Amino acid sequence: MPQVLNHFKTNMLKPKKPHQSEVTMTEMVLPNDTNTLNNLMGGRLLHWMDICAAISAQKHSNRIVVTASVDNVSFTEPIRLGNIVTMHAKVTRAFNSSMEVFLEVWAEDIPAGQRVSTNRAFYTFVAVDQNGRPIEVPPLEPETDEENELYLSALRRRQLRLVLAGRLNAAEATELKALFKVE
Amino acid sequence: MPQVLNHFKTNMLKPKKPHQSEVTMTEMVLPNDTNTLNNLMGGRLLHWMDICAAISAQKHSNRIVVTASVDNVSFTEPIRLGNIVTMHAKVTRAFNSSMEVFLEVWAEDIPAGQRVSTNRAFYTFVAVDQNGRPIEVPPLEPETDEENELYLSALRRRQLRLVLAGRLNAAEATELKALFKVE
Amino acid sequence: MPQVLNHFKTNMLKPKKPHQSEVTMTEMVLPNDTNTLNNLMGGRLLHWMDICAAISAQKHSNRIVVTASVDNVSFTEPIRLGNIVTMHAKVTRAFNSSMEVFLEVWAEDIPAGQRVSTNRAFYTFVAVDQNGRPIEVPPLEPETDEENELYLSALRRRQLRLVLAGRLNAAEATELKALFKVE
Amino acid sequence: MPQVLNHFKTNMLKPKKPHQSEVTMTEMVLPNDTNTLNNLMGGRLLHWMDICAAISAQKHSNRIVVTASVDNVSFTEPIRLGNIVTMHAKVTRAFNSSMEVFLEVWAEDIPAGQRVSTNRAFYTFVAVDQNGRPIEVPPLEPETDEENELYLSALRRRQLRLVLAGRLNAAEATELKALFKVE
Amino acid sequence: MPQVLNHFKTNMLKPKKPHQSEVTMTEMVLPNDTNTLNNLMGGRLLHWMDICAAISAQKHSNRIVVTASVDNVSFTEPIRLGNIVTMHAKVTRAFNSSMEVFLEVWAEDIPAGQRVSTNRAFYTFVAVDQNGRPIEVPPLEPETDEENELYLSALRRRQLRLVLAGRLNAAEATELKALFKVE
Amino acid sequence: MPQVLNHFKTNMLKPKKPHQSEVTMTEMVLPNDTNTLNNLMGGRLLHWMDICAAISAQKHSNRIVVTASVDNVSFTEPIRLGNIVTMHAKVTRAFNSSMEVFLEVWAEDIPAGQRVSTNRAFYTFVAVDQNGRPIEVPPLEPETDEENELYLSALRRRQLRLVLAGRLNAAEATELKALFKVE
Repeated sequence: MPQVLNHFKTNMLKPKKPHQSEVTMTEMVLPNDTNTLNNLMGGRLLHWMDICAAISAQKHSNRIVVTASVDNVSFTEPIRLGNIVTMHAKVTRAFNSSMEVFLEVWAEDIPAGQRVSTNRAFYTFVAVDQNGRPIEVPPLEPETDEENELYLSALRRRQLRLVLAGRLNAAEATELKALFKVE
Repeated sequence: MPQVLNHFKTNMLKPKKPHQSEVTMTEMVLPNDTNTLNNLMGGRLLHWMDICAAISAQKHSNRIVVTASVDNVSFTEPIRLGNIVTMHAKVTRAFNSSMEVFLEVWAEDIPAGQRVSTNRAFYTFVAVDQNGRPIEVPPLEPETDEENELYLSALRRRQLRLVLAGRLNAAEATELKALFKVE
Repeated sequence: MPQVLNHFKTNMLKPKKPHQSEVTMTEMVLPNDTNTLNNLMGGRLLHWMDICAAISAQKHSNRIVVTASVDNVSFTEPIRLGNIVTMHAKVTRAFNSSMEVFLEVWAEDIPAGQRVSTNRAFYTFVAVDQNGRPIEVPPLEPETDEENELYLSALRRRQLRLVLAGRLNAAEATELKALFKVE
Repeated sequence: MPQVLNHFKTNMLKPKKPHQSEVTMTEMVLPNDTNTLNNLMGGRLLHWMDICAAISAQKHSNRIVVTASVDNVSFTEPIRLGNIVTMHAKVTRAFNSSMEVFLEVWAEDIPAGQRVSTNRAFYTFVAVDQNGRPIEVPPLEPETDEENELYLSALRRRQLRLVLAGRLNAAEATELKALFKVE
Repeated sequence: MPQVLNHFKTNMLKPKKPHQSEVTMTEMVLPNDTNTLNNLMGGRLLHWMDICAAISAQKHSNRIVVTASVDNVSFTEPIRLGNIVTMHAKVTRAFNSSMEVFLEVWAEDIPAGQRVSTNRAFYTFVAVDQNGRPIEVPPLEPETDEENELYLSALRRRQLRLVLAGRLNAAEATELKALFKVE
Repeated sequence: MPQVLNHFKTNMLKPKKPHQSEVTMTEMVLPNDTNTLNNLMGGRLLHWMDICAAISAQKHSNRIVVTASVDNVSFTEPIRLGNIVTMHAKVTRAFNSSMEVFLEVWAEDIPAGQRVSTNRAFYTFVAVDQNGRPIEVPPLEPETDEENELYLSALRRRQLRLVLAGRLNAAEATELKALFKVE
């Protein structure tokens, strides 16, 4: 499947910086968002994160975008009814018509003065034209150290997505081998 | 982190079969579920899948359950406004207090007579008592060939989750090495 | 009103079996679905049942369908917040462009291991074309004993609907007289 | 089943008039309320009617009420996206702890200057105490001719509900025989 | 800004009475409408009031209407979960293409037999054609004393809106000076 | 009514800066948020603004807060289906137990590269304890020129609210006289 990896063809669009796609979204946890323990349901959070990340990808591409995938998300911290959920998203790397978006999520119990980091996630979006056909997006030019690290590791996460989707042979996933510390 | 892998301690609960946790959920795609292309938003589908999978885990454990993680999900087929989305979930394996649930999703345009497989996903849930503390669940006893295959591969997916969550060193992820065809 | 009863004109469409229109829908009772006693509101259940039955009628007819009527529905069992509601629908009989759908509803408190049958209902739908005009649907061919019984009694329920809607004179409702054991 | 019909025992509560339970409810048809033809879904209307009728029964009884049944409802007039739906409800008769509520529904396309009567329906509610146990409600004292007619025919509708629920033998449904013009 | 005040040009449309735009809307406070104290959130009430007032303005103008402004609204009475909120709206005055609507809001705890007046508000709407362009509406002809008072004071409220929006110099707001008892 | 103005009594709480209560909230306009012209309904925006402003007031006070009032809001720019609405809120001044929050709202059509300022508004909240009783909040200490200007003018807006609510005699509203340039 060489075509899925040819993200190196010439892209004539002007590169954009990560901060140009930064989005902050805030939600208050209402009763219908919670399970019988009064904790935010994981699926509702995934829904909010999808909207937040989609807006970020829209900002980078100035295009309509559709969700292509979400990477593994863990839910380790319960988020309570009445808590304030803050999501922060920005694009980490662009590949032809697709963009990877990194999200960080915090939950606050403001009257209790508590704020915890609850989730980190990577969503991928494809920019499309009015007929739903993929269309090229600007390359991303990272600036800070953290942005550079996210930019570089995006390749590894992309290979993992392709392997998991059965679109790349694990033996060819050169970046992943590094992840598993195999020489 | 040996404690996260000790899923072999003696479990006195009576094993259950996969078909005992089967759940079918059906949703009609309404306007608020769609983006500006009139396609179902990925986050809304993740939300529905979470509820469907949670009910399956409830059925296996007869307990309140909370979402622990969702594995990588790809969205390759657009699902249209007015389509009928059918989700089918069943538990693939239990580990102490956690359960992996496998979901398959189809979308139908019934007037057009079209039905496509759109997604496959694995969610993980933890059974908890009324105070939210993890509590043991019955082991799973697979019956069919497909159920056996899912049962066995659950270990590999669990290791990948632990590696991605930084809770397991990749070098120790013996199952994963097989995945990446590394000896 | 002879025209409302002429469901015997030649229908050239290939008959379908009841199992071809079977639909299972599952909902979790969330806070906004409940009244101040934390029980599911009757109207919310009627809403879910309408969607479930409409999908069943769509499956039989492969057409867009619109609700024509709901028969008397009783609510005798309270359904609690957090319960899982399972609805099962299938078409019982077709008349020209209309279809009767039978629904059975169960509520489960899974942690408590309780499952009760809560409702049975009959909805009627009309298949329509893109302009909203009624259009012929395939006849139904019952297979099991229960399906035969539902098929036969559909005529009686249809007469009752017509009498209640003032579209049939009670004296002409020959099937109903049997219901009221009047010779 | 004599107990279900003993609605003649002495009720010490002060009778109330129908106008004391009058409720007017107005809704605007929004996109999520509609099917793919942009018409209001029948189930959504049943949901609104349930809330409107419940408020009426609350007003008569000054109690928490739960839906006991809805009688046959026909949907003959399509209601369009953007239409204004007006519901008017009032109690027609009280029986020990239950009340029958009559609803009339109109739909308006205000810019087009069109207003049509779309539905008539009867809902039944039971008044309950804080533990969900049935509790006596005031008798109803009709005033106008229409209220008297609804009060008298309530007995007939009640018998039909009991017959349909299998709680009354059709042969004993003396009021219904009149309906079917059988002597 | 003389153009914003020229509401005196000849209007050929037939005047309408306030009662022709009367609307009553009723809502039950459900869990998702409430904050962590189980009280109705102010923003939800503003949303309901906007819909109720918009229907009133539609009735006066027989046009599509868009919200132009809401005047200062105070929330002094808590409205509880399960309460019934009744809103009553009518047009108080028309200016070319805009209409001022007066709303009164009551909250009832019916089982407790309590009903309190909770809010009074003025919304302004503009009637528009299918392309969203402002279009003339009929003048209003008040009938009762209260309607006359509201009609007259509408001019004062309109000046205050224009001053607050920076579209009228306070020095020219002749009506407002009266409000502040300045000669 | 001297007591409503005595916001000068000694407050022992440590002052906070405006930036400590800054909140950014982002919403995507979905179909159910729009009217028949596909524009965001004013009431929905007021609802979002109320939640965003409440979070800001929570941040300043570390308390549960309830909406006390919203000042006049104008809607001059249509916001379209699919647009991204960004709200930015911060506290401008605290009075004993109440806080004024200033909101600015922008709407973006990202694919079109258009971003417009659509609204500015002032909401007021009261901090309450678990029993709903008002409780003292920290004073605000403005830092920038704009924050100072908002802090000073808060007094004028507060007087206007009190006059409009009939709780202050216009003749005593010394700050307002300045607004209307009356000596």
